[in-house]
Amino acid sequence: SKEAMKIAIKKAKESGISIAVVKNSNHFGIAGYYAEMAVKEGMIGISLTNTAPLVIPTFGVERVLGTNPISVGIPCSNGNFLLDMATSVASRGKVEQYNRLNRDLNDNWAAGGNGEIMTNPAEVLDLFLSGPYGGMLPLGGNAEKSGGHKGYGLSLLVDILTGGLSSSTGSSKTYGEKTLISHFFAAINPKIFGDEDSVKKSIDGILNTVKNSKKEPGKKRIYIHGEKEKERREKSMKDGIELDDNTVLLLIKIAGEFGEKITFE
Amino acid sequence: SKEAMKIAIKKAKESGISIAVVKNSNHFGIAGYYAEMAVKEGMIGISLTNTAPLVIPTFGVERVLGTNPISVGIPCSNGNFLLDMATSVASRGKVEQYNRLNRDLNDNWAAGGNGEIMTNPAEVLDLFLSGPYGGMLPLGGNAEKSGGHKGYGLSLLVDILTGGLSSSTGSSKTYGEKTLISHFFAAINPKIFGDEDSVKKSIDGILNTVKNSKKEPGKKRIYIHGEKEKERREKSMKDGIELDDNTVLLLIKIAGEFGEKITFE
Repeated sequence: SKEAMKIAIKKAKESGISIAVVKNSNHFGIAGYYAEMAVKEGMIGISLTNTAPLVIPTFGVERVLGTNPISVGIPCSNGNFLLDMATSVASRGKVEQYNRLNRDLNDNWAAGGNGEIMTNPAEVLDLFLSGPYGGMLPLGGNAEKSGGHKGYGLSLLVDILTGGLSSSTGSSKTYGEKTLISHFFAAINPKIFGDEDSVKKSIDGILNTVKNSKKEPGKKRIYIHGEKEKERREKSMKDGIELDDNTVLLLIKIAGEFGEKITFE
Repeated sequence: SKEAMKIAIKKAKESGISIAVVKNSNHFGIAGYYAEMAVKEGMIGISLTNTAPLVIPTFGVERVLGTNPISVGIPCSNGNFLLDMATSVASRGKVEQYNRLNRDLNDNWAAGGNGEIMTNPAEVLDLFLSGPYGGMLPLGGNAEKSGGHKGYGLSLLVDILTGGLSSSTGSSKTYGEKTLISHFFAAINPKIFGDEDSVKKSIDGILNTVKNSKKEPGKKRIYIHGEKEKERREKSMKDGIELDDNTVLLLIKIAGEFGEKITFE
Protein backbone atom coordinates (compact mmCIF):
# COMPACT_ATOMS: atom_id res chain seq x y z
CA SER A 1 0.00 0.00 0.00
CA LYS A 2 2.84 2.38 0.80
CA GLU A 3 4.29 1.55 -2.62
CA ALA A 4 0.99 2.35 -4.35
CA MET A 5 0.78 5.73 -2.63
CA LYS A 6 4.43 6.43 -3.47
CA ILE A 7 3.73 5.75 -7.14
CA ALA A 8 0.64 7.99 -7.07
CA ILE A 9 2.68 10.81 -5.49
CA LYS A 10 5.48 10.43 -8.04
CA LYS A 11 3.06 10.47 -10.97
CA ALA A 12 1.15 13.45 -9.58
CA LYS A 13 4.42 15.38 -9.33
CA GLU A 14 5.01 14.74 -13.01
CA SER A 15 1.55 14.94 -14.50
CA GLY A 16 -0.72 16.66 -11.96
CA ILE A 17 -3.14 13.96 -10.81
CA SER A 18 -2.74 10.25 -10.19
CA ILE A 19 -4.92 7.46 -8.80
CA ALA A 20 -3.87 3.95 -7.77
CA VAL A 21 -6.15 1.14 -6.61
CA VAL A 22 -5.02 -1.98 -4.74
CA LYS A 23 -6.91 -5.24 -4.22
CA ASN A 24 -6.39 -8.38 -2.13
CA SER A 25 -4.56 -6.44 0.55
CA ASN A 26 -4.87 -7.75 4.07
CA HIS A 27 -3.87 -4.79 6.17
CA PHE A 28 -4.20 -1.06 5.84
CA GLY A 29 -3.36 0.57 9.16
CA ILE A 30 -4.34 4.23 9.51
CA ALA A 31 -5.92 5.88 6.45
CA GLY A 32 -4.42 9.24 7.42
CA TYR A 33 -0.91 7.81 7.17
CA TYR A 34 -1.09 7.57 3.37
CA ALA A 35 -2.78 10.95 2.91
CA GLU A 36 -0.04 12.48 5.06
CA MET A 37 2.65 10.85 2.89
CA ALA A 38 1.36 12.98 0.01
CA VAL A 39 1.11 16.15 2.10
CA LYS A 40 4.75 15.75 3.17
CA GLU A 41 5.64 15.92 -0.54
CA GLY A 42 3.50 19.03 -1.08
CA MET A 43 0.65 17.07 -2.69
CA ILE A 44 -3.03 16.77 -1.81
CA GLY A 45 -3.48 13.14 -0.69
CA ILE A 46 -6.60 10.98 -0.63
CA SER A 47 -6.74 7.47 0.82
CA LEU A 48 -9.74 5.19 1.13
CA THR A 49 -10.17 1.56 2.11
CA ASN A 50 -12.97 -0.89 2.57
CA THR A 51 -12.86 -3.00 5.72
CA ALA A 52 -14.41 -6.08 7.29
CA PRO A 53 -18.24 -5.79 7.26
CA LEU A 54 -19.31 -4.01 10.47
CA VAL A 55 -21.92 -1.44 9.38
CA ILE A 56 -25.62 -1.73 8.45
CA PRO A 57 -27.23 0.41 5.71
CA THR A 58 -30.24 2.71 6.19
CA PHE A 59 -33.41 0.52 6.40
CA GLY A 60 -31.21 -2.61 6.67
CA VAL A 61 -30.02 -4.79 9.56
CA GLU A 62 -27.30 -6.84 7.85
CA ARG A 63 -23.64 -5.88 8.08
CA VAL A 64 -22.90 -5.41 4.39
CA LEU A 65 -20.72 -2.30 4.70
CA GLY A 66 -17.36 -1.54 6.31
CA THR A 67 -16.42 1.36 8.54
CA ASN A 68 -14.78 2.43 5.25
CA PRO A 69 -12.62 5.39 6.24
CA ILE A 70 -11.98 8.49 4.14
CA SER A 71 -8.78 10.44 4.58
CA VAL A 72 -7.86 13.64 2.77
CA GLY A 73 -4.74 15.69 3.50
CA ILE A 74 -4.17 19.22 2.22
CA PRO A 75 -0.86 21.11 2.34
CA CYS A 76 -1.20 24.54 3.93
CA SER A 77 1.05 27.04 5.70
CA ASN A 78 0.09 26.86 9.35
CA GLY A 79 -0.18 23.15 10.11
CA ASN A 80 -1.98 20.84 7.74
CA PHE A 81 -5.58 19.86 7.24
CA LEU A 82 -5.80 16.09 7.67
CA LEU A 83 -9.28 14.61 7.71
CA ASP A 84 -9.28 10.93 8.69
CA MET A 85 -12.72 9.57 9.46
CA ALA A 86 -14.62 6.32 9.50
CA THR A 87 -17.86 6.74 7.55
CA SER A 88 -19.64 5.10 10.49
CA VAL A 89 -20.48 7.30 13.50
CA ALA A 90 -17.80 5.48 15.47
CA SER A 91 -15.17 2.86 14.69
CA ARG A 92 -15.02 -0.66 16.11
CA GLY A 93 -11.91 0.40 18.06
CA LYS A 94 -13.99 3.05 19.83
CA VAL A 95 -16.49 0.40 20.93
CA GLU A 96 -13.62 -1.73 22.27
CA GLN A 97 -12.29 1.31 24.11
CA TYR A 98 -15.69 2.07 25.65
CA ASN A 99 -15.94 -1.58 26.67
CA ARG A 100 -12.60 -1.37 28.50
CA LEU A 101 -13.75 1.85 30.19
CA ASN A 102 -17.18 0.39 31.05
CA ARG A 103 -18.89 3.31 29.34
CA ASP A 104 -22.19 3.31 27.48
CA LEU A 105 -22.08 4.02 23.74
CA ASN A 106 -23.79 7.11 22.36
CA ASP A 107 -27.31 6.30 21.16
CA ASN A 108 -26.52 6.63 17.45
CA TRP A 109 -23.53 4.28 17.24
CA ALA A 110 -24.95 0.77 16.90
CA ALA A 111 -28.16 -1.18 16.34
CA GLY A 112 -29.16 -4.82 16.79
CA GLY A 113 -30.67 -7.41 14.46
CA ASN A 114 -34.10 -5.74 14.49
CA GLY A 115 -32.74 -2.24 14.09
CA GLU A 116 -33.03 -1.49 17.84
CA ILE A 117 -30.45 0.98 19.21
CA MET A 118 -27.78 -0.68 21.37
CA THR A 119 -25.63 1.18 23.91
CA ASN A 120 -23.88 -1.70 25.72
CA PRO A 121 -20.42 -2.06 24.13
CA ALA A 122 -19.93 -5.71 25.16
CA GLU A 123 -23.24 -6.65 23.50
CA VAL A 124 -22.23 -4.83 20.30
CA LEU A 125 -18.88 -6.62 20.20
CA ASP A 126 -20.78 -9.91 20.66
CA LEU A 127 -22.83 -9.11 17.54
CA PHE A 128 -19.66 -9.26 15.46
CA LEU A 129 -19.07 -12.86 16.58
CA SER A 130 -22.59 -14.12 15.98
CA GLY A 131 -24.08 -14.01 12.49
CA PRO A 132 -24.39 -11.13 10.03
CA TYR A 133 -27.15 -9.08 11.71
CA GLY A 134 -26.89 -5.84 13.65
CA GLY A 135 -23.82 -3.62 13.75
CA MET A 136 -22.38 -0.14 13.67
CA LEU A 137 -24.47 2.69 12.23
CA PRO A 138 -23.37 4.94 9.39
CA LEU A 139 -22.55 8.60 10.16
CA GLY A 140 -25.92 10.26 10.78
CA GLY A 141 -27.39 7.26 12.63
CA ASN A 142 -30.22 4.90 11.78
CA ALA A 143 -32.81 7.16 10.16
CA GLU A 144 -33.09 9.42 7.14
CA LYS A 145 -34.30 12.30 9.30
CA SER A 146 -31.04 12.23 11.27
CA GLY A 147 -28.99 12.00 8.06
CA GLY A 148 -28.09 8.29 8.22
CA HIS A 149 -28.57 7.82 4.47
CA LYS A 150 -25.69 10.24 3.92
CA GLY A 151 -23.20 8.26 6.01
CA TYR A 152 -24.52 5.11 4.32
CA GLY A 153 -23.90 6.78 0.94
CA LEU A 154 -20.33 7.71 1.86
CA SER A 155 -19.63 4.16 3.04
CA LEU A 156 -21.08 2.69 -0.15
CA LEU A 157 -19.08 5.20 -2.22
CA VAL A 158 -15.86 4.02 -0.54
CA ASP A 159 -16.82 0.41 -1.30
CA ILE A 160 -17.31 1.33 -4.97
CA LEU A 161 -14.08 3.35 -5.27
CA THR A 162 -12.00 0.63 -3.57
CA GLY A 163 -13.51 -2.82 -4.18
CA GLY A 164 -15.40 -1.73 -7.29
CA LEU A 165 -12.70 0.12 -9.22
CA SER A 166 -10.12 -2.57 -8.36
CA SER A 167 -12.47 -5.25 -9.82
CA SER A 168 -12.72 -6.90 -6.41
CA THR A 169 -15.64 -7.01 -3.92
CA GLY A 170 -17.25 -4.74 -1.37
CA SER A 171 -16.74 -4.90 2.39
CA SER A 172 -19.41 -7.59 2.73
CA LYS A 173 -17.17 -10.15 1.04
CA THR A 174 -13.77 -9.11 2.41
CA TYR A 175 -11.85 -11.64 4.44
CA GLY A 176 -14.05 -14.28 2.82
CA GLU A 177 -12.95 -17.31 0.85
CA LYS A 178 -11.50 -15.37 -2.03
CA THR A 179 -10.99 -11.66 -1.59
CA LEU A 180 -9.37 -9.38 0.93
CA ILE A 181 -9.66 -5.62 1.35
CA SER A 182 -9.14 -2.99 -1.37
CA HIS A 183 -7.72 0.52 -1.29
CA PHE A 184 -7.89 3.73 -3.33
CA PHE A 185 -5.06 6.27 -3.30
CA ALA A 186 -4.93 9.60 -5.10
CA ALA A 187 -2.43 12.42 -5.20
CA ILE A 188 -3.10 15.84 -6.70
CA ASN A 189 -0.40 18.43 -7.37
CA PRO A 190 -1.70 21.85 -6.18
CA LYS A 191 0.32 23.44 -8.99
CA ILE A 192 -2.42 22.52 -11.49
CA PHE A 193 -4.64 25.14 -9.82
CA GLY A 194 -2.33 28.03 -10.67
CA ASP A 195 -0.15 30.08 -8.35
CA GLU A 196 0.66 27.88 -5.37
CA ASP A 197 1.10 30.76 -2.95
CA SER A 198 -2.31 32.20 -3.65
CA VAL A 199 -3.93 28.75 -3.25
CA LYS A 200 -2.15 28.32 0.11
CA LYS A 201 -3.18 31.80 1.18
CA SER A 202 -6.81 31.04 0.33
CA ILE A 203 -6.73 27.77 2.26
CA ASP A 204 -5.07 29.43 5.26
CA GLY A 205 -7.71 32.14 5.19
CA ILE A 206 -10.52 29.58 5.22
CA LEU A 207 -9.00 27.65 8.15
CA ASN A 208 -8.25 30.80 10.14
CA THR A 209 -11.77 32.15 9.72
CA VAL A 210 -13.21 28.92 11.12
CA LYS A 211 -10.66 28.69 13.97
CA ASN A 212 -11.22 32.29 15.03
CA SER A 213 -15.02 32.19 14.84
CA LYS A 214 -17.16 32.45 17.98
CA LYS A 215 -17.07 29.44 20.31
CA GLU A 216 -19.95 27.69 22.03
CA PRO A 217 -20.21 28.68 25.71
CA GLY A 218 -17.73 26.51 27.67
CA LYS A 219 -15.59 25.61 24.61
CA LYS A 220 -12.19 27.23 24.28
CA ARG A 221 -11.20 26.16 20.83
CA ILE A 222 -12.47 25.08 17.42
CA TYR A 223 -10.21 22.37 16.06
CA ILE A 224 -9.05 21.95 12.49
CA HIS A 225 -8.94 18.26 11.49
CA GLY A 226 -5.57 16.74 12.25
CA GLU A 227 -4.65 19.26 14.99
CA LYS A 228 -5.81 17.15 17.92
CA GLU A 229 -4.03 14.03 16.62
CA LYS A 230 -0.81 15.97 15.89
CA GLU A 231 -0.75 17.57 19.33
CA ARG A 232 -1.51 14.25 21.05
CA ARG A 233 1.30 12.56 19.10
CA GLU A 234 3.77 15.30 20.05
CA LYS A 235 2.73 15.04 23.72
CA SER A 236 3.09 11.23 23.64
CA MET A 237 6.56 11.47 22.13
CA LYS A 238 7.52 13.79 24.99
CA ASP A 239 5.59 12.45 28.00
CA GLY A 240 4.83 8.85 26.99
CA ILE A 241 1.45 7.31 26.10
CA GLU A 242 -1.38 7.43 28.62
CA LEU A 243 -3.12 4.09 29.07
CA ASP A 244 -6.32 3.31 30.93
CA ASP A 245 -6.25 0.67 33.70
CA ASN A 246 -7.95 -2.06 31.69
CA THR A 247 -5.48 -1.67 28.83
CA VAL A 248 -2.59 -1.95 31.29
CA LEU A 249 -4.09 -5.15 32.74
CA LEU A 250 -4.60 -6.52 29.22
CA LEU A 251 -0.98 -5.81 28.23
CA ILE A 252 0.31 -7.46 31.45
CA LYS A 253 -1.87 -10.51 30.71
CA ILE A 254 -0.63 -10.78 27.08
CA ALA A 255 3.00 -10.32 28.21
CA GLY A 256 2.49 -13.08 30.80
CA GLU A 257 1.27 -15.45 28.08
CA PHE A 258 4.63 -14.94 26.38
CA GLY A 259 6.51 -15.34 29.69
CA GLU A 260 7.41 -11.63 29.80
CA LYS A 261 6.96 -9.25 32.70
CA ILE A 262 6.28 -5.57 31.97
CA THR A 263 6.00 -2.58 34.26
CA PHE A 264 4.34 0.79 33.74
CA GLU A 265 5.04 4.20 35.22
CA SER B 1 -20.32 25.72 -14.52
CA LYS B 2 -21.76 23.44 -17.17
CA GLU B 3 -18.89 24.47 -19.42
CA ALA B 4 -16.31 23.63 -16.73
CA MET B 5 -17.77 20.17 -16.23
CA LYS B 6 -17.92 19.65 -20.00
CA ILE B 7 -14.22 20.47 -20.27
CA ALA B 8 -13.38 18.12 -17.38
CA ILE B 9 -15.34 15.30 -19.07
CA LYS B 10 -13.65 15.90 -22.41
CA LYS B 11 -10.17 15.90 -20.85
CA ALA B 12 -10.90 12.80 -18.79
CA LYS B 13 -11.94 10.99 -21.97
CA GLU B 14 -8.58 11.83 -23.47
CA SER B 15 -6.21 11.56 -20.53
CA GLY B 16 -8.00 9.65 -17.76
CA ILE B 17 -8.58 12.20 -15.01
CA SER B 18 -9.42 15.89 -15.04
CA ILE B 19 -10.27 18.52 -12.46
CA ALA B 20 -11.67 22.01 -13.02
CA VAL B 21 -12.30 24.69 -10.40
CA VAL B 22 -14.50 27.76 -10.85
CA LYS B 23 -14.63 30.92 -8.75
CA ASN B 24 -16.90 33.97 -8.54
CA SER B 25 -19.89 31.98 -9.69
CA ASN B 26 -23.23 33.09 -8.41
CA HIS B 27 -25.42 30.09 -8.99
CA PHE B 28 -24.87 26.36 -8.90
CA GLY B 29 -28.23 24.59 -8.94
CA ILE B 30 -28.20 20.90 -8.07
CA ALA B 31 -24.76 19.34 -7.41
CA GLY B 32 -25.97 16.01 -8.78
CA TYR B 33 -26.71 17.57 -12.16
CA TYR B 34 -23.00 17.99 -12.95
CA ALA B 35 -21.99 14.57 -11.61
CA GLU B 36 -24.73 13.05 -13.76
CA MET B 37 -23.42 14.88 -16.85
CA ALA B 38 -20.22 12.84 -16.46
CA VAL B 39 -22.07 9.57 -15.83
CA LYS B 40 -24.06 10.06 -19.03
CA GLU B 41 -20.72 10.09 -20.86
CA GLY B 42 -19.53 6.92 -19.09
CA MET B 43 -17.29 8.85 -16.67
CA ILE B 44 -17.18 8.99 -12.89
CA GLY B 45 -18.25 12.53 -11.98
CA ILE B 46 -17.59 14.58 -8.86
CA SER B 47 -19.06 17.99 -8.18
CA LEU B 48 -18.66 20.15 -5.10
CA THR B 49 -19.62 23.71 -4.26
CA ASN B 50 -19.42 26.03 -1.33
CA THR B 51 -22.56 27.99 -0.52
CA ALA B 52 -23.77 30.93 1.54
CA PRO B 53 -22.74 30.50 5.21
CA LEU B 54 -25.48 28.55 7.00
CA VAL B 55 -23.65 25.93 9.09
CA ILE B 56 -21.78 26.14 12.43
CA PRO B 57 -18.63 24.08 13.16
CA THR B 58 -18.23 21.64 16.08
CA PHE B 59 -17.69 23.71 19.30
CA GLY B 60 -18.62 26.88 17.40
CA VAL B 61 -21.79 28.96 17.11
CA GLU B 62 -20.94 31.21 14.14
CA ARG B 63 -22.10 30.37 10.62
CA VAL B 64 -18.71 30.12 8.91
CA LEU B 65 -19.48 27.06 6.75
CA GLY B 66 -21.87 26.35 3.92
CA THR B 67 -24.18 23.39 3.46
CA ASN B 68 -21.39 22.54 0.97
CA PRO B 69 -22.81 19.61 -0.99
CA ILE B 70 -20.85 16.64 -2.31
CA SER B 71 -22.04 14.78 -5.37
CA VAL B 72 -20.43 11.71 -6.88
CA GLY B 73 -21.89 9.75 -9.79
CA ILE B 74 -20.67 6.32 -10.84
CA PRO B 75 -21.60 4.55 -14.10
CA CYS B 76 -22.92 1.03 -13.51
CA SER B 77 -25.13 -1.46 -15.34
CA ASN B 78 -28.39 -1.50 -13.43
CA GLY B 79 -29.18 2.16 -12.81
CA ASN B 80 -26.51 4.52 -11.58
CA PHE B 81 -25.12 5.39 -8.21
CA LEU B 82 -25.61 9.12 -7.70
CA LEU B 83 -24.79 10.46 -4.26
CA ASP B 84 -25.86 14.08 -3.83
CA MET B 85 -25.76 15.27 -0.26
CA ALA B 86 -25.40 18.46 1.73
CA THR B 87 -22.65 18.00 4.33
CA SER B 88 -25.06 19.43 6.90
CA VAL B 89 -27.67 17.06 8.39
CA ALA B 90 -30.34 18.87 6.41
CA SER B 91 -30.38 21.61 3.81
CA ARG B 92 -31.95 25.05 4.19
CA GLY B 93 -34.60 23.99 1.67
CA LYS B 94 -35.66 21.21 4.00
CA VAL B 95 -36.16 23.71 6.83
CA GLU B 96 -38.28 25.86 4.50
CA GLN B 97 -40.30 22.78 3.54
CA TYR B 98 -40.86 21.84 7.21
CA ASN B 99 -41.91 25.42 7.88
CA ARG B 100 -44.56 25.22 5.13
CA LEU B 101 -45.75 21.89 6.53
CA ASN B 102 -45.74 23.18 10.14
CA ARG B 103 -43.51 20.29 11.21
CA ASP B 104 -40.83 20.26 13.91
CA LEU B 105 -37.24 19.76 12.77
CA ASN B 106 -35.32 16.69 13.91
CA ASP B 107 -33.27 17.44 17.02
CA ASN B 108 -29.89 17.32 15.27
CA TRP B 109 -30.58 19.78 12.45
CA ALA B 110 -30.01 23.25 13.89
CA ALA B 111 -28.69 25.10 16.94
CA GLY B 112 -29.00 28.68 18.17
CA GLY B 113 -26.46 31.31 19.14
CA ASN B 114 -25.51 29.53 22.37
CA GLY B 115 -25.35 26.10 20.80
CA GLU B 116 -28.85 25.17 22.01
CA ILE B 117 -30.77 22.73 19.79
CA MET B 118 -33.62 24.35 17.85
CA THR B 119 -36.57 22.47 16.37
CA ASN B 120 -38.89 25.30 15.29
CA PRO B 121 -38.31 25.86 11.54
CA ALA B 122 -39.57 29.47 11.53
CA GLU B 123 -37.13 30.38 14.31
CA VAL B 124 -34.25 28.76 12.43
CA LEU B 125 -35.11 30.68 9.26
CA ASP B 126 -35.18 33.88 11.35
CA LEU B 127 -31.59 33.14 12.48
CA PHE B 128 -30.41 33.53 8.89
CA LEU B 129 -31.79 37.07 8.79
CA SER B 130 -30.34 38.26 12.10
CA GLY B 131 -26.56 38.23 12.59
CA PRO B 132 -23.98 35.48 12.11
CA TYR B 133 -24.79 33.25 15.11
CA GLY B 134 -26.62 29.93 15.22
CA GLY B 135 -27.44 27.82 12.18
CA MET B 136 -27.61 24.40 10.61
CA LEU B 137 -25.56 21.57 12.12
CA PRO B 138 -23.03 19.50 10.20
CA LEU B 139 -23.84 15.84 9.44
CA GLY B 140 -23.48 14.05 12.78
CA GLY B 141 -25.01 16.88 14.82
CA ASN B 142 -23.52 19.20 17.42
CA ALA B 143 -21.19 16.90 19.39
CA GLU B 144 -18.11 14.78 18.76
CA LYS B 145 -19.78 11.75 20.35
CA SER B 146 -22.54 11.86 17.74
CA GLY B 147 -20.00 12.33 14.92
CA GLY B 148 -20.52 16.06 14.29
CA HIS B 149 -16.81 16.69 13.80
CA LYS B 150 -16.94 14.39 10.74
CA GLY B 151 -19.69 16.36 9.00
CA TYR B 152 -17.84 19.54 9.97
CA GLY B 153 -14.68 18.05 8.41
CA LEU B 154 -16.49 17.23 5.17
CA SER B 155 -17.93 20.73 4.97
CA LEU B 156 -14.52 22.30 5.60
CA LEU B 157 -12.98 19.96 3.01
CA VAL B 158 -15.48 21.18 0.42
CA ASP B 159 -14.63 24.80 1.30
CA ILE B 160 -10.92 24.03 0.78
CA LEU B 161 -11.41 22.14 -2.51
CA THR B 162 -13.70 24.85 -3.94
CA GLY B 163 -12.84 28.26 -2.46
CA GLY B 164 -9.27 27.25 -1.53
CA LEU B 165 -8.09 25.60 -4.74
CA SER B 166 -9.69 28.33 -6.85
CA SER B 167 -7.77 30.99 -4.85
CA SER B 168 -11.04 32.46 -3.64
CA THR B 169 -12.68 32.37 -0.18
CA GLY B 170 -14.64 29.91 1.96
CA SER B 171 -18.40 29.92 2.45
CA SER B 172 -18.12 32.48 5.23
CA LYS B 173 -17.18 35.20 2.77
CA THR B 174 -19.36 34.22 -0.20
CA TYR B 175 -21.94 36.70 -1.40
CA GLY B 176 -19.88 39.31 0.43
CA GLU B 177 -18.41 42.49 -1.02
CA LYS B 178 -15.94 40.76 -3.27
CA THR B 179 -16.33 37.05 -3.82
CA LEU B 180 -19.10 34.74 -4.83
CA ILE B 181 -19.29 30.92 -4.61
CA SER B 182 -16.69 28.46 -5.94
CA HIS B 183 -17.03 25.00 -7.47
CA PHE B 184 -14.89 21.89 -7.98
CA PHE B 185 -15.58 19.46 -10.83
CA ALA B 186 -13.76 16.22 -11.58
CA ALA B 187 -14.22 13.51 -14.16
CA ILE B 188 -12.47 10.13 -14.07
CA ASN B 189 -12.43 7.68 -16.96
CA PRO B 190 -13.12 4.17 -15.55
CA LYS B 191 -10.89 2.79 -18.32
CA ILE B 192 -7.80 3.71 -16.30
CA PHE B 193 -8.70 0.94 -13.84
CA GLY B 194 -8.39 -1.82 -16.42
CA ASP B 195 -11.12 -3.91 -18.02
CA GLU B 196 -14.29 -1.82 -17.91
CA ASP B 197 -16.63 -4.80 -17.84
CA SER B 198 -15.01 -6.33 -14.78
CA VAL B 199 -15.10 -2.97 -12.98
CA LYS B 200 -18.81 -2.62 -13.81
CA LYS B 201 -19.45 -6.19 -12.68
CA SER B 202 -17.72 -5.51 -9.37
CA ILE B 203 -19.71 -2.34 -8.79
CA ASP B 204 -22.98 -4.07 -9.69
CA GLY B 205 -22.11 -6.87 -7.27
CA ILE B 206 -21.51 -4.41 -4.44
CA LEU B 207 -24.80 -2.57 -5.06
CA ASN B 208 -26.80 -5.80 -5.42
CA THR B 209 -25.42 -7.24 -2.18
CA VAL B 210 -26.50 -4.13 -0.29
CA LYS B 211 -29.93 -3.94 -2.00
CA ASN B 212 -30.66 -7.62 -1.34
CA SER B 213 -29.50 -7.63 2.28
CA LYS B 214 -31.96 -8.15 5.14
CA LYS B 215 -34.34 -5.25 5.82
CA GLU B 216 -35.29 -3.67 9.12
CA PRO B 217 -38.74 -4.85 10.30
CA GLY B 218 -41.36 -2.71 8.52
CA LYS B 219 -39.03 -1.59 5.71
CA LYS B 220 -39.53 -3.03 2.25
CA ARG B 221 -36.50 -1.77 0.45
CA ILE B 222 -32.93 -0.58 0.84
CA TYR B 223 -32.30 2.29 -1.56
CA ILE B 224 -29.18 2.91 -3.59
CA HIS B 225 -28.39 6.63 -3.78
CA GLY B 226 -30.04 8.22 -6.78
CA GLU B 227 -32.84 5.63 -7.05
CA LYS B 228 -35.45 7.55 -5.06
CA GLU B 229 -34.77 10.77 -6.99
CA LYS B 230 -34.84 8.98 -10.35
CA GLU B 231 -38.13 7.22 -9.58
CA ARG B 232 -39.70 10.40 -8.25
CA ARG B 233 -38.64 12.25 -11.40
CA GLU B 234 -40.11 9.55 -13.64
CA LYS B 235 -43.35 9.58 -11.66
CA SER B 236 -43.55 13.39 -11.83
CA MET B 237 -43.02 13.34 -15.59
CA LYS B 238 -45.94 10.91 -15.85
CA ASP B 239 -48.37 12.03 -13.13
CA GLY B 240 -47.30 15.61 -12.46
CA ILE B 241 -45.64 17.08 -9.39
CA GLU B 242 -47.32 16.69 -6.00
CA LEU B 243 -47.44 19.93 -4.02
CA ASP B 244 -48.37 20.48 -0.38
CA ASP B 245 -51.19 22.93 0.41
CA ASN B 246 -48.94 25.74 1.62
CA THR B 247 -46.85 25.60 -1.55
CA VAL B 248 -50.04 25.81 -3.63
CA LEU B 249 -51.20 28.85 -1.65
CA LEU B 250 -47.76 30.44 -2.04
CA LEU B 251 -47.78 29.89 -5.82
CA ILE B 252 -51.32 31.34 -6.11
CA LYS B 253 -50.17 34.36 -4.08
CA ILE B 254 -47.10 34.93 -6.25
CA ALA B 255 -49.14 34.48 -9.44
CA GLY B 256 -51.64 37.02 -8.07
CA GLU B 257 -48.86 39.56 -7.55
CA PHE B 258 -48.12 39.28 -11.27
CA GLY B 259 -51.83 39.48 -12.13
CA GLU B 260 -51.99 35.81 -13.15
CA LYS B 261 -54.49 33.21 -12.05
CA ILE B 262 -53.37 29.59 -11.77
CA THR B 263 -55.28 26.45 -11.00
CA PHE B 264 -54.12 23.09 -9.68
CA GLU B 265 -55.53 19.60 -10.10
